[in-house]
Amino acid sequence: MVSKSPELEHPKPAFGWAARDQSGLLSPFKFSRRATTENDVAFKVLYCGICHSDLHMTKNEWGVTQYPIVPGILEQYVSIVNWLLASRPVPLRHVHEIVGIVTEVGSKVEKFKVGDRVGVGCMVGSCHSCDSCHNNLENYCPKMILTYGAKNYDGTITYGGYSDLMVANEHFIVRIPENLSLDVGAPLLCAGITVYSPLRYFGLDKPGMHVGVVGLGGLGHVAVKFAKAMGVKVTVISTSPSKKQEAVENLGADSFLVSSDQDQMQVAMGTLDGIIDTVSAAHPVLPLLALLKSHGKLVLVGAPEKPLELHVFALISGRKIVGGSCIGGMKETQEMIDFAAKHNITADVEVIPMDYVNTAMERMLKGDVRYRFVIDVAKTLNP
Amino acid sequence: MVSKSPELEHPKPAFGWAARDQSGLLSPFKFSRRATTENDVAFKVLYCGICHSDLHMTKNEWGVTQYPIVPGILEQYVSIVNWLLASRPVPLRHVHEIVGIVTEVGSKVEKFKVGDRVGVGCMVGSCHSCDSCHNNLENYCPKMILTYGAKNYDGTITYGGYSDLMVANEHFIVRIPENLSLDVGAPLLCAGITVYSPLRYFGLDKPGMHVGVVGLGGLGHVAVKFAKAMGVKVTVISTSPSKKQEAVENLGADSFLVSSDQDQMQVAMGTLDGIIDTVSAAHPVLPLLALLKSHGKLVLVGAPEKPLELHVFALISGRKIVGGSCIGGMKETQEMIDFAAKHNITADVEVIPMDYVNTAMERMLKGDVRYRFVIDVAKTLNP
Repeated sequence: MVSKSPELEHPKPAFGWAARDQSGLLSPFKFSRRATTENDVAFKVLYCGICHSDLHMTKNEWGVTQYPIVPGILEQYVSIVNWLLASRPVPLRHVHEIVGIVTEVGSKVEKFKVGDRVGVGCMVGSCHSCDSCHNNLENYCPKMILTYGAKNYDGTITYGGYSDLMVANEHFIVRIPENLSLDVGAPLLCAGITVYSPLRYFGLDKPGMHVGVVGLGGLGHVAVKFAKAMGVKVTVISTSPSKKQEAVENLGADSFLVSSDQDQMQVAMGTLDGIIDTVSAAHPVLPLLALLKSHGKLVLVGAPEKPLELHVFALISGRKIVGGSCIGGMKETQEMIDFAAKHNITADVEVIPMDYVNTAMERMLKGDVRYRFVIDVAKTLNP
Repeated sequence: MVSKSPELEHPKPAFGWAARDQSGLLSPFKFSRRATTENDVAFKVLYCGICHSDLHMTKNEWGVTQYPIVPGILEQYVSIVNWLLASRPVPLRHVHEIVGIVTEVGSKVEKFKVGDRVGVGCMVGSCHSCDSCHNNLENYCPKMILTYGAKNYDGTITYGGYSDLMVANEHFIVRIPENLSLDVGAPLLCAGITVYSPLRYFGLDKPGMHVGVVGLGGLGHVAVKFAKAMGVKVTVISTSPSKKQEAVENLGADSFLVSSDQDQMQVAMGTLDGIIDTVSAAHPVLPLLALLKSHGKLVLVGAPEKPLELHVFALISGRKIVGGSCIGGMKETQEMIDFAAKHNITADVEVIPMDYVNTAMERMLKGDVRYRFVIDVAKTLNP
């Protein structure tokens, strides 16, 4: 099938910032969105979070990017799986977080009306007929369509949230509760669900449990907040001793381990029911497995490019597991947002203007952000 | 504390075969067992299975063996954990399988009487006070005492089943049902529980599920039988095309995959709910992860010495897990034996005389056994 022209399929003029080449530098970009079809919701974008993924994608570090790209999510899932099969594993977890106010709804839209506060996370489509879709796990649908840089069913490429307008099927729209501010809520659509889902699925959400969170960045800092709200005791594990005060005093962690401190790690051996590991750089997992009690669970939500070393004896001797988890389904994403609103869980963000995005990405690369940049799209995106 | 003389603590003369040095060659060996204390059961050994572990241990390939050794189980668990922490992972799963007829019971023994058919598997002691022990998971007790080559609570070294007599606390004695022949039942105490336990724990025992079994050796062949008896569809995955007929016609597997056949593996992608991987040599797990459906479980029961390469993306993209499992607790071991008796599950064995043991070990090293050597101790061990 020949791809149709995006302009014919997408009559709605839109404006955003996009990367055009491997420099990764973003600049103003005119494009178009599809018409609001009967099941679609269109919304004016107010805020959009910046994920580390965007950096990879705009610089084409994963080699899959089609330019121009308006950041918002990974390249096609299928492409990545193909990479994987070709033994070229790539990082994941990097998604986008777009929130705004509904401006138009299609004739068959039932859940939303004009003026509603909504968001779009990582996905804008799935097949609705596979086992994963039937079980509200669209995130594991083999035909899932990611929010940006993916090929849509009509053959056009999806564009993310660094833009004035967003259009998506209502199934992939999340309602943002009134008491959750949009700027600090936006990152939950990616970072929030990425850590919330495995806490639930792997049963690490029981009051009195003791869970470790590895890495205190965009994902890790909300993992601490969610786990604490579930009644779980939380230990943050980090390479940076300087983050201790922040982890314990500001985020509410119960304790802090410096992963390079052998004595600390030795004392903590066998104390954790589970670990949410948010680190996407290569790192040793053997010391983390040692922190687990028997039957404990190490859940990876960041994917290093190179394979990790897995010492099988460390699994066998305590019936431990290493698992992975990727965002969450739409039903669970709504549940997560509602849970966050109920428990006053927000991301710690630095709100920036649109034209600061390139600087923000450079700072993000250096880890110089606590913990998420969020672009004030509505006020600062000037056509 | 100074170790006491084994002779003082162990007044019962015993006779067996043992390795004396790194040649690994076994030869007749006089030693002694402890008296049958109030909670002990003594039994005349009729049969004893040979595990691959015995080969490692008698040749001191893991470097932990104290000579002389009457094979039966790994060196102290604690030593191995210490090794692990020193980044020197070692293989596991290798245990022993000793069956016979009760000859004497202590005054407080409640479950057994003289003449009962019994067996001892991998363990002869545990702390009885930790969480694992309280949950009938003595196999994960940090103070678990293995059946041979381990230091007992009295400071003496435990001796395994290549001997005429065995003495153990009744808690670690398994009753062998009348309709289960002792020779073909013996290997279940190791190989059987090693595969039965993870099928149960990881929920791979539901009728209609589809489970893969990697490796068709001592563990793999009984894994097929147990899974089939649970109502599970079984695919054997092996490097040896020659094993197909055996797997399907004799063992009852539903299908067979040659792991080196890219086309076969491609077609089977995403079809398995779980995999029991019995291979203890280093091998790639990425193709196995690809065989799993989303949310599938790869369970390793063989531990390669070197770490495996774990492609994290393969876990994350389908919320898959890699887990390990090590034998089973005493309650579950009895359950497994009763299940085997009910479903006529036996190990396929080659019964050999005691003085064939050195040849058997050489054959085992070459994979030349279907699937387990069992020594006819009663008839062929001549003092």
